[in-house]
Amino acid sequence: MLDEPIIQRLKEIVGAENIATETQDLICNSYDATQMEFLPDAVVYPGNAEEISRVLKLANGERIPVFPRGAGSGFSGGALPKGGGIVLVTTRLNRILRIDQENLLAEVEPGVVTEHFQQEVEKLGLFYPPDPASLKFSTLGGNVSENAGGPRAVKYGVTRDFVMGLEVVLPTGEIIRTGGETYKGVVGYDLTRLLVGSEGTLGVVTKIIFKLLPYPEAKKTMLTTFDSIDGAARAVSTIIGNKIIPTTLEFMDHATLQCVDRRFNLGLPAEARAVLLIEVDGDRELIEKQAAKIHEVIKPLGLVEFKVAKDAAESEALWKVRRLVSPSLRDVNPDKYNEDIVVPRSKVPDVIRRIEQIQQKYDIPIVNFGHAGDGNIHVNIMIDKAVPGMEEKAHGAIADVFRAALDLGGTMSGEHGVGLSKQPFIPLELSPAQIATMQAIKKALDPNNILNPGKMFPV
Amino acid sequence: MLDEPIIQRLKEIVGAENIATETQDLICNSYDATQMEFLPDAVVYPGNAEEISRVLKLANGERIPVFPRGAGSGFSGGALPKGGGIVLVTTRLNRILRIDQENLLAEVEPGVVTEHFQQEVEKLGLFYPPDPASLKFSTLGGNVSENAGGPRAVKYGVTRDFVMGLEVVLPTGEIIRTGGETYKGVVGYDLTRLLVGSEGTLGVVTKIIFKLLPYPEAKKTMLTTFDSIDGAARAVSTIIGNKIIPTTLEFMDHATLQCVDRRFNLGLPAEARAVLLIEVDGDRELIEKQAAKIHEVIKPLGLVEFKVAKDAAESEALWKVRRLVSPSLRDVNPDKYNEDIVVPRSKVPDVIRRIEQIQQKYDIPIVNFGHAGDGNIHVNIMIDKAVPGMEEKAHGAIADVFRAALDLGGTMSGEHGVGLSKQPFIPLELSPAQIATMQAIKKALDPNNILNPGKMFPV
Ligand SMILES: Cc1cc2nc3c(=O)[nH]c(=O)nc-3n(C[C@H](O)[C@H](O)[C@H](O)COP(=O)(O)OP(=O)(O)OC[C@H]3O[C@@H](n4cnc5c(N)ncnc54)[C@H](O)[C@@H]3O)c2cc1C
Ligand SMILES: Cc1cc2nc3c(=O)[nH]c(=O)nc-3n(C[C@H](O)[C@H](O)[C@H](O)COP(=O)(O)OP(=O)(O)OC[C@H]3O[C@@H](n4cnc5c(N)ncnc54)[C@H](O)[C@@H]3O)c2cc1C
Repeated sequence: MLDEPIIQRLKEIVGAENIATETQDLICNSYDATQMEFLPDAVVYPGNAEEISRVLKLANGERIPVFPRGAGSGFSGGALPKGGGIVLVTTRLNRILRIDQENLLAEVEPGVVTEHFQQEVEKLGLFYPPDPASLKFSTLGGNVSENAGGPRAVKYGVTRDFVMGLEVVLPTGEIIRTGGETYKGVVGYDLTRLLVGSEGTLGVVTKIIFKLLPYPEAKKTMLTTFDSIDGAARAVSTIIGNKIIPTTLEFMDHATLQCVDRRFNLGLPAEARAVLLIEVDGDRELIEKQAAKIHEVIKPLGLVEFKVAKDAAESEALWKVRRLVSPSLRDVNPDKYNEDIVVPRSKVPDVIRRIEQIQQKYDIPIVNFGHAGDGNIHVNIMIDKAVPGMEEKAHGAIADVFRAALDLGGTMSGEHGVGLSKQPFIPLELSPAQIATMQAIKKALDPNNILNPGKMFPV
Repeated sequence: MLDEPIIQRLKEIVGAENIATETQDLICNSYDATQMEFLPDAVVYPGNAEEISRVLKLANGERIPVFPRGAGSGFSGGALPKGGGIVLVTTRLNRILRIDQENLLAEVEPGVVTEHFQQEVEKLGLFYPPDPASLKFSTLGGNVSENAGGPRAVKYGVTRDFVMGLEVVLPTGEIIRTGGETYKGVVGYDLTRLLVGSEGTLGVVTKIIFKLLPYPEAKKTMLTTFDSIDGAARAVSTIIGNKIIPTTLEFMDHATLQCVDRRFNLGLPAEARAVLLIEVDGDRELIEKQAAKIHEVIKPLGLVEFKVAKDAAESEALWKVRRLVSPSLRDVNPDKYNEDIVVPRSKVPDVIRRIEQIQQKYDIPIVNFGHAGDGNIHVNIMIDKAVPGMEEKAHGAIADVFRAALDLGGTMSGEHGVGLSKQPFIPLELSPAQIATMQAIKKALDPNNILNPGKMFPV
């Protein structure tokens, strides 16, 4: 609970209509895509960086935690106000400030929804590749703060690779610019990339300068089915080894295919044990050649079916398989833990085998799919929380999955972040010296521990 | 001067044969590609991270500054021991630890010379694109610490874009890993990219994991000559606007061409006012098509000559024009200040016009060439230090050039860094709050200010 005088001062800063303290408003800002919930004391909707600066200065003076929030689509509880405080929502900062066609860049506010931005640049023949599956509602500020990825990361990289500069309100309330309008620039430390992926713990992003690309001339979608996981995994390295970097290399394991097929009857071949959804883009003739080459080089790897889309409608039909995964999963069990480990590409078959063993050990269904091109596998541990003991089993399985990824030279998270949910596991991945270094940086920028406190690091 | 007991302890750490205190050794480590010189008190050549850690712990205890050094090819005095102390040279850390063909990555020690690494990966059909012109002698550790760029940055990006992970000895002597073997990974802050470009002020890099690419199938070189700077600059945007991202878009202005022609008689057309050296790479058929398209779209922009190399030998001949620039410059005047400003691509003609005015104002020759594709222009202020007053004029001109770049939305340095030489100008580009933030990070990681002290920030 915040005292009335503090609410009053917040109202003076953001305007009385831009603060909420009613229970229903608090509830709406208490959750994200995890199943956690924490009620804030107040929600503010500032209209510019100056207001955010004043909120943070007030918060520092009164030692009130502040939690930045975009769309609340996060998968790790990063925006949740654990322990209470002020949730600071970026909804009103929703303008695309400019799209510079000559220099291939755009400046936006953080509350712009990812898909809206993509559509606007595409109207001009330009391309913003990062495409988290949440793009219909996630904000660009949330994408930057989580360093969001997506299927196109294989060829184009993740959000980080498109951020040229930022305007940020530091935890103390100082407003600074980082980076700029040039892709090259080495004056001072790279604060831009320190902030990308810092999960709202080092600053509130208030403007973003994104690099853009020309929109690719054409694309080609292929759905390829293999008789083994190994075949599909080797296909990935084989394609890249043949100098083709596809835009997308999405992978679905047997359990995933069964889920989708059971509900939507895809008519996949009986021998199907894994599917790779492959997309190439670029020059029209080149992608024809690439598609033919891909077919040729993956044929010996236990390929049982190779479907190529002839047009946009057929491409959409092939993508359907991938898009139906999420809605199908709940048929296995009502609750899921969705992890997003990464391993070096060549280790995908090993990690899948390790996960099969974990599944047997705990006797809970685990369904794997994801971005095989960069070794980023979404491991879905499907449970029914109503069944006594199942949640504990799931926790054991999660820790084992993380250990498997780390043993194989990987990481616990490729795109979803640490937030609250992976916090207890951090010491599995980071050494005490690594954690101490990061905490020293946090303390240097946020001496009173005001911004998103109690997140990311072990508490 | 270091006391004998300290020299003794250093000998115990690195071995008596790996420390130098004789004047000639000190002199060899007292300069870089700037014209500055500062003698160290001792030079150590450690053999591994453990030894570096012990050197830094000793240095912290005794408050002795330590200056990491690769090849000393830096253009901003970053490795120079101003104020004295220990120069720590990475020459012995010169192993390529592994090249992982399946996962397209390599792990190296920092003392490996850039070109050697490129050649080794190329033998395996792989590609490490960053290509600073100093690649025959610069080290990969120096490249990482300066975030080196090069002609291929237009298409492939700079050193930063290829660093996946590091091993670093922090200023306090702690050894940590950052990043890892996966390109995606969002656990904790992005220390990897904070360290890239930190000019040896935040840690000594002892291992680097680099991302690699498949080597492009073919390349095509074009030398294109324009009757105006504007034409050449518009050609850059026009090519990219036509969805072609060349590997290289190197620009030379009229003064540069005159220098080269005077000495090497290139036989350029009389109307030549600017030259663009363009290279495309990738699929053999695609680059033919791209070369034809480039010719078509730049023709209306005052193109006076378009030469395409038919083979590697002809390509080498076209590149000669660019490579002869540096050796030709000294004919203008014996001393040069080589700056490397960046402006948004579309502002290249404006900044060149501003530089012409600066040249008239100070009455000293200025020669411009560089990486037009990313707006990174090498501004060479040619003087004769023996002529009284000329050095002061040059300093005035440098400040004006920086102001011009900043006015146009650019930066003072695209690849050479701040070091000692741009330090006095930092307040032109960075606000007090930006500088304070960076200094807070430096202090958090280097509380005793041991590593490369007195660099980068205003003193
Ligand atoms: C169905 C679904 C699919 C998904 N698919 C993907 C995917 O493919 N790839 C992927 O990477 N992620 C995916 N996600 C996760 C999530 O959508 C992303 O992390 C997204 O970037 C979060 O954006 P948001 O606006 O919802 O941020 P929020 O959830 O509101 O916040 C996320 C974090 O960012 C911080 N934050 C938000 N805005 C700011 C700001 N302006 N300044 C500073 N900090 C800020 C918050 O404090 C919090 O720590 C998916 C989520 C769902 C529910
Ligand atoms: C002719 C010429 C052409 C050049 N062309 C280019 C170009 O095209 N693009 C470009 O970007 N640069 C260019 N440079 C500049 C220079 O070569 C680069 O900055 C290069 O990266 C420096 O490497 P180095 O090994 O010589 O580093 P050094 O000069 O020895 O050191 C540079 C900085 O890095 C630090 N450092 C070195 N090794 C380590 C380590 N292991 N850990 C931590 N810190 C370390 C030093 O302390 C110093 O601050 C050129 C220089 C010359 C002389």
